[in-house]
Amino acid sequence: MTTREKLASLREEMKTNDIEAFIVYSADPHMSEYLPDEWQERTWLSGFTGSAGFVVITLDKAGLWTDGRYFTQAPIELKDSGIELFKEGVEGTPHYIDWIISETSNNAKIAVNALATSHNNWEEVETKLNLNNRQLIDKALLEKVWTDRGSVSKNPVFVHPIERAGQTVTDKITAIRNEMKKEKATAHIISSLDDVAWTVNLRGSDVACNPVFLGYIYISLDEAILFVDLDKLDEEAKALMKESGVEIREYSDFFNFLTTINKETIWIAKNSNHSVFEKVKAKNSLIKKPAPGHLMKAVKNSSELKGFETVMLRDGIAMVNFLYWLTHNVGKKELDEYEIGQKLLEFRQAEENLVGNSFASIVGYKGNGAIIHYSAPSSGSAKVLAEGSILIDSGGQYLEGTTDITRTIPLGQVDHEFKVDATLALKGLIKLSMVKFPKGTKGVQLDSLARMALWEEGKDYNHGTGHGVGSFMNVHEGPQSIRKDLHPTALEEGMVLSNEPGYYVEGKYGIRHENLIVVKEWKKTEWNTFYEFKTLTLCPFFTNIIKESLLTNEEKKWLNDYHHHCKEKLSPFLEGKVKKWFLNLVAPI
Amino acid sequence: MTTREKLASLREEMKTNDIEAFIVYSADPHMSEYLPDEWQERTWLSGFTGSAGFVVITLDKAGLWTDGRYFTQAPIELKDSGIELFKEGVEGTPHYIDWIISETSNNAKIAVNALATSHNNWEEVETKLNLNNRQLIDKALLEKVWTDRGSVSKNPVFVHPIERAGQTVTDKITAIRNEMKKEKATAHIISSLDDVAWTVNLRGSDVACNPVFLGYIYISLDEAILFVDLDKLDEEAKALMKESGVEIREYSDFFNFLTTINKETIWIAKNSNHSVFEKVKAKNSLIKKPAPGHLMKAVKNSSELKGFETVMLRDGIAMVNFLYWLTHNVGKKELDEYEIGQKLLEFRQAEENLVGNSFASIVGYKGNGAIIHYSAPSSGSAKVLAEGSILIDSGGQYLEGTTDITRTIPLGQVDHEFKVDATLALKGLIKLSMVKFPKGTKGVQLDSLARMALWEEGKDYNHGTGHGVGSFMNVHEGPQSIRKDLHPTALEEGMVLSNEPGYYVEGKYGIRHENLIVVKEWKKTEWNTFYEFKTLTLCPFFTNIIKESLLTNEEKKWLNDYHHHCKEKLSPFLEGKVKKWFLNLVAPI
Repeated sequence: MTTREKLASLREEMKTNDIEAFIVYSADPHMSEYLPDEWQERTWLSGFTGSAGFVVITLDKAGLWTDGRYFTQAPIELKDSGIELFKEGVEGTPHYIDWIISETSNNAKIAVNALATSHNNWEEVETKLNLNNRQLIDKALLEKVWTDRGSVSKNPVFVHPIERAGQTVTDKITAIRNEMKKEKATAHIISSLDDVAWTVNLRGSDVACNPVFLGYIYISLDEAILFVDLDKLDEEAKALMKESGVEIREYSDFFNFLTTINKETIWIAKNSNHSVFEKVKAKNSLIKKPAPGHLMKAVKNSSELKGFETVMLRDGIAMVNFLYWLTHNVGKKELDEYEIGQKLLEFRQAEENLVGNSFASIVGYKGNGAIIHYSAPSSGSAKVLAEGSILIDSGGQYLEGTTDITRTIPLGQVDHEFKVDATLALKGLIKLSMVKFPKGTKGVQLDSLARMALWEEGKDYNHGTGHGVGSFMNVHEGPQSIRKDLHPTALEEGMVLSNEPGYYVEGKYGIRHENLIVVKEWKKTEWNTFYEFKTLTLCPFFTNIIKESLLTNEEKKWLNDYHHHCKEKLSPFLEGKVKKWFLNLVAPI
Repeated sequence: MTTREKLASLREEMKTNDIEAFIVYSADPHMSEYLPDEWQERTWLSGFTGSAGFVVITLDKAGLWTDGRYFTQAPIELKDSGIELFKEGVEGTPHYIDWIISETSNNAKIAVNALATSHNNWEEVETKLNLNNRQLIDKALLEKVWTDRGSVSKNPVFVHPIERAGQTVTDKITAIRNEMKKEKATAHIISSLDDVAWTVNLRGSDVACNPVFLGYIYISLDEAILFVDLDKLDEEAKALMKESGVEIREYSDFFNFLTTINKETIWIAKNSNHSVFEKVKAKNSLIKKPAPGHLMKAVKNSSELKGFETVMLRDGIAMVNFLYWLTHNVGKKELDEYEIGQKLLEFRQAEENLVGNSFASIVGYKGNGAIIHYSAPSSGSAKVLAEGSILIDSGGQYLEGTTDITRTIPLGQVDHEFKVDATLALKGLIKLSMVKFPKGTKGVQLDSLARMALWEEGKDYNHGTGHGVGSFMNVHEGPQSIRKDLHPTALEEGMVLSNEPGYYVEGKYGIRHENLIVVKEWKKTEWNTFYEFKTLTLCPFFTNIIKESLLTNEEKKWLNDYHHHCKEKLSPFLEGKVKKWFLNLVAPI
């Protein structure tokens, strides 16, 4: 079916149901960052494969809204589709709701599949449409249009053992119930896949890069039910659920189950899909707050932190071997960005318990490094030569933990300006690595430390400084962050974050330095408990792109200490030429 | 009347009106920081004179809630009053709403004078009470109890001339109407006294320290009405209103006028008193957002900034003369904190166009300096000797602008620890003074810069780093701030703020260094427009309490440059011994 045929078929459904516009977000029922194949509705319908963007179809028009990352790719993929590109963030681009209003008649019905949008978003859209005499309705119009969407994954769901999880399922559910009691909630629904997996100490592989599985959890004060495809659970998983007092039911029974809930006070996060709210709202009262397990998951226990240390060692070894390979093969054999990413995966696969990439690697040569969410195509990616620099942002999922690291690698001569920028960004990473801060401090209070050296030169970077990282779990995890945004979550001991300042010159180069850090108690004073960050990542930076004269003595000391630490940890596992090269890399400046 | 008699009389009123509890906040109809005498209801009723606290009276009990600043003073003032002290912020102290619920019966009526509480607070209290089967009603019960509350001020209202205001009333009202149109508002009510005074370029003196007058403004798309005691306006003020198209009506007509408004979309800030909302809500629709003039007022124009420069010179001369006097008389004559504050006012009064203090001076000797909101009593304040240090936080209202400055002054030997703390706090002031930051940056992103040096020693201070400052207007002005709080207002060119890190050791000493700073454009880069702060205050710091070894070269340079600047500006206006002493003070370190 061509895109035009798909749209025609969808419009027939729209007419049958008296619907004037249909919105297709890029979302699944769990608001996942990566979508399972059967939920790639926007991609299937429009042909546009970017990671962000949504489509609106009216009876005679269609539009795709996406951001600057895809202004080159989208027109190519949308060619002859009949779908117009609306460039988000560009002056004059209408907001899609305004566009819908202008393209539909008074009292028109606008439809969305409520399963594939959050309650939060539903409410926003509904409010705006109602103010303009339009109605928002729930209709899964693509059900009859996309008939070959394939079957749901049957990937196994397996136990994340207690020595790695560090807390029993029983204890987690008890902790959640304690929070429920404080809020006077009698029931709780968990729908984020990482929160589901964390709560029951299970893992799966239903979506790319994230070791999660499709599921919902319902917890009342005396029962706990996991809704999951029962075929996927191995015996060990079933036994764990039984001993933890968790009943298991079919994933497909969840919405029927919801209709039986009555007179409960249900705690449910607003980022749950809107269908869940529709099913329970009439007969129950709702507490709309972030799930209590969400914050608990972010605070890593000692077993999880031990896991991080274990995998950092493996990941560091893989990285150093890879970096040796890259710097010693570039210019000698033909290499392109995509192959380099694959090769890095091979080096990680040589390490124990690697499950796969923790996200789609970003391998950006020269100007491609300046494209923040760059993804090298599997064929036809840029050739990489022994000149300029390459930015590589990658990570691994290991059974014991998750990694995320970025290094900026010189492949030949780099100019003065590049070195200055690389140093300014590194100063940011170091400043954040060294800060001490009192309990209660939020990420936004620290974000500027990573930017200050750049700001002093009138420069900045257009992304956050730090995101939370899961423990053999999603590489992007909330609620904590280090960003310009006014996010209210205070940093707590045990939270793992990335520390990744950068600088980007369009068409020329991209620089990013990224380590993972964990919040640790520094000391208790008469004032407060003070925290500091401990760096988890073990992999040297290329000091030959650093302008030593721009570093303060303290910063130099931090860098030398860090390299010394990498040397202590990694060199026992390195050999021969790689080791020799590595020892040179970590030599003090 | 004793407090017990007042309470008895109030309880009669409560019984007559079938009211089980009455709340008396410390507020006036304009939510002012300083209350006009006739609105000191809480003080009159309870005898408690602190700046913060409120009273709840039931039929058989009474309680005062106040914070740690007043835990010593309150029990003395409440003695034999029958009012119990509830210590806010102390474990086990009930929230006053919970206490009210526990002390009243089901379906009880709880009263507040809606004129003396914000809509915001009203809604919060009402929601909590309703959830617990209590009713909140508006009743000015003290009207019949406090019969001799005195008459409203007849202080003159006078013109703040265009050369100081920098923008005509007509232009301001046009700008407000433009914002109204964007929000589709057809009417707007202004009730904050500083916003009222700013809008119509008038000033008054109805409350202490703030050059404002009691008034409301109503603006529709074609009319503007100032409600003010007409007797107070001089001819010039009346003429200005006339030429600006502003109708003037009696202050006392305002609420009657509100009942005539019909079918308007009224923009009104949620910190307006709740009575206003009650009067208009049935027949109009409301847009509850901060008043548009509030942000406009915060962004100072060139005339206002010129005014700041003018008054900083005067204030600096007064401060230097005062500091000379203080350091040369302490130990030689008997001095107490209160007298020192009065003497400082005298030095300011010697300067042109001083109107008065911009707030109640804080003069805290030794341990009193550690009490952040300390106010020396007019009699019996601490004797000040030639030893230890004194913290003096003060400011002046001049016709051309407003000042606010804190210096920490050594009066004799100070110990090593004091010097270290004084240096750490000064490093914070300097760091914030030097920062460059992109347009869009919010205060919370910069707050940590002022604290970082203290954090590195496990120290901090328990107040904000910076507040907005008005132009011959309130010394505390919104919406911008530099604090730990997640406040969404971005810093804009022309905003004036304080920069006041400190450190406090209970019972020993208080340190605070405070300058006023203004946001200026630093440069436009390909990245963004970048801002920096320019320091407005002209007065040296005492370098003999600074540990030079703890300052970086950059920090030393900033301090020396600042002192050089003070020397250039102030020394032409100083003479004899004072000048000689001053030149020594500003000598480079």
